[in-house]
Amino acid sequence: MKTLGYYNGKFGELEEMSIPMNDRVCWFGDGVYDAGPCRNYKIFAIDEHIDRFFNSAGLLDIEMPVTKQELKELLQEMVQKMDTGDLFVYYQVTRGTGIRNHVFPEGKANLWIMLKPDTVDAGDKPIKLITTPDTRFFHCNIKTLNLIPSVMAAEKAKKAGADETVLYRPGKRVTECAHSNCHIIKDGKLITAPTDNLILPGIGRAHLIRMCKKLEIPVSETPYTLEEMFAADEILVTSSSKLCLCADELDGKPVGGKATELVNKLRQALLKEYMDATE
Amino acid sequence: MKTLGYYNGKFGELEEMSIPMNDRVCWFGDGVYDAGPCRNYKIFAIDEHIDRFFNSAGLLDIEMPVTKQELKELLQEMVQKMDTGDLFVYYQVTRGTGIRNHVFPEGKANLWIMLKPDTVDAGDKPIKLITTPDTRFFHCNIKTLNLIPSVMAAEKAKKAGADETVLYRPGKRVTECAHSNCHIIKDGKLITAPTDNLILPGIGRAHLIRMCKKLEIPVSETPYTLEEMFAADEILVTSSSKLCLCADELDGKPVGGKATELVNKLRQALLKEYMDATE
Repeated sequence: MKTLGYYNGKFGELEEMSIPMNDRVCWFGDGVYDAGPCRNYKIFAIDEHIDRFFNSAGLLDIEMPVTKQELKELLQEMVQKMDTGDLFVYYQVTRGTGIRNHVFPEGKANLWIMLKPDTVDAGDKPIKLITTPDTRFFHCNIKTLNLIPSVMAAEKAKKAGADETVLYRPGKRVTECAHSNCHIIKDGKLITAPTDNLILPGIGRAHLIRMCKKLEIPVSETPYTLEEMFAADEILVTSSSKLCLCADELDGKPVGGKATELVNKLRQALLKEYMDATE
Repeated sequence: MKTLGYYNGKFGELEEMSIPMNDRVCWFGDGVYDAGPCRNYKIFAIDEHIDRFFNSAGLLDIEMPVTKQELKELLQEMVQKMDTGDLFVYYQVTRGTGIRNHVFPEGKANLWIMLKPDTVDAGDKPIKLITTPDTRFFHCNIKTLNLIPSVMAAEKAKKAGADETVLYRPGKRVTECAHSNCHIIKDGKLITAPTDNLILPGIGRAHLIRMCKKLEIPVSETPYTLEEMFAADEILVTSSSKLCLCADELDGKPVGGKATELVNKLRQALLKEYMDATE
């Protein structure tokens, strides 16, 4: 199949799949998701993603309709049905079905899966960033389906001819991007926002930090500002499907490019880790 | 019909309605809504609601697939198909359909309508409130489908045996409730949070303010704190289907009850306005 959707046991091409109007995603966006890349029919870092998925659900008191192992097996089965093994593997759970009412419904949560062809960005081309105030809620550590501010920020980047949007809270404190984490390199050290309620604990971010430690690059998980980002030696952007991108423009101004060797070393190591795991 | 759903031209009982998995509401909660009560097959304050609905859409650059007049006629037609004329009339628009991608899709927005039996609460029984920090985003003036924090706050009230949850921002500034506006009466004056980006410009709130002015009750649209709420003569809660409720308990402590006559006068006037308009 070219694409594949799943909803509570039903399968089909995404365009042919439908879901009940009374699924709470329709009225409240009441659900959480997770997602990551797959290469050669092998889902990358699947246990880390499934752990985070269950954690997001737990933080919102959504009862999972499957175990971690059942979900893993279902994803692995579904991947096998696809025309290509290079995929974006996405799954979400929504808080049940019922006549619209804010309070929780009776009954089980709904499980969704969505597969589409995709490949990981090797990151050899620098990207352009813009900035915008971070007007999101204070639950950014939970991977929810309440994504309107991220949608607006992504569209703003597109309209500006940029690739991603850096978000900042009052005090110009950088949090993350519309759909990635971001980091700076200064004086040979990686500085990245701490995993509080203002950012998603990215799997790409976790791999980056682990790789830095392996390569003996010091890591500081501390808040940093837009000013520090402009003055950084390098700006990195990571997500599950964009392992380690490097920015050369921020709000139209040239940035980074002062620690190219270090960035290349990191990027190649992360790419190798990905290729080896999905051989 | 007992309930009635509508999606881009298709009609049916809510339980039988389905929508495409690729509607952007499913991945991003990417849409806005509005809703209000109907009595005797007459939709109350329909023009005010439709105006706010189009304003919410406009603030998120969602292009409406119908004109205000077309929507009004469609709602009025649909109400006529129902077994009862006492209804909750709900409508939303979502930003089109397509494979999941943050940036805006090509093509038209999707129009949804949902009708279910409901009656307006006359408000003669006092309600119980609890409080919780307001952790929502900074677009609360837009009636979006990103409602997880409101869902969590409503569930918290239910579990505490209360009716609604008062939300407060840092500095204990009261904003609104999980799905209502709230107000206090002190020394014969109504004090209510201003319509900035922290609260929804409630239609019930607008009617309350207009009624206060008609009855020569001074109105101050200024921020107030939880402390002021505890010390208020009365606490009022309004929404489109709960015209003017009065609270007698806040976080388990007795509150209000010191301007009963004024509250009764206001409530009766608002109820009369509603009954007259839907005669």
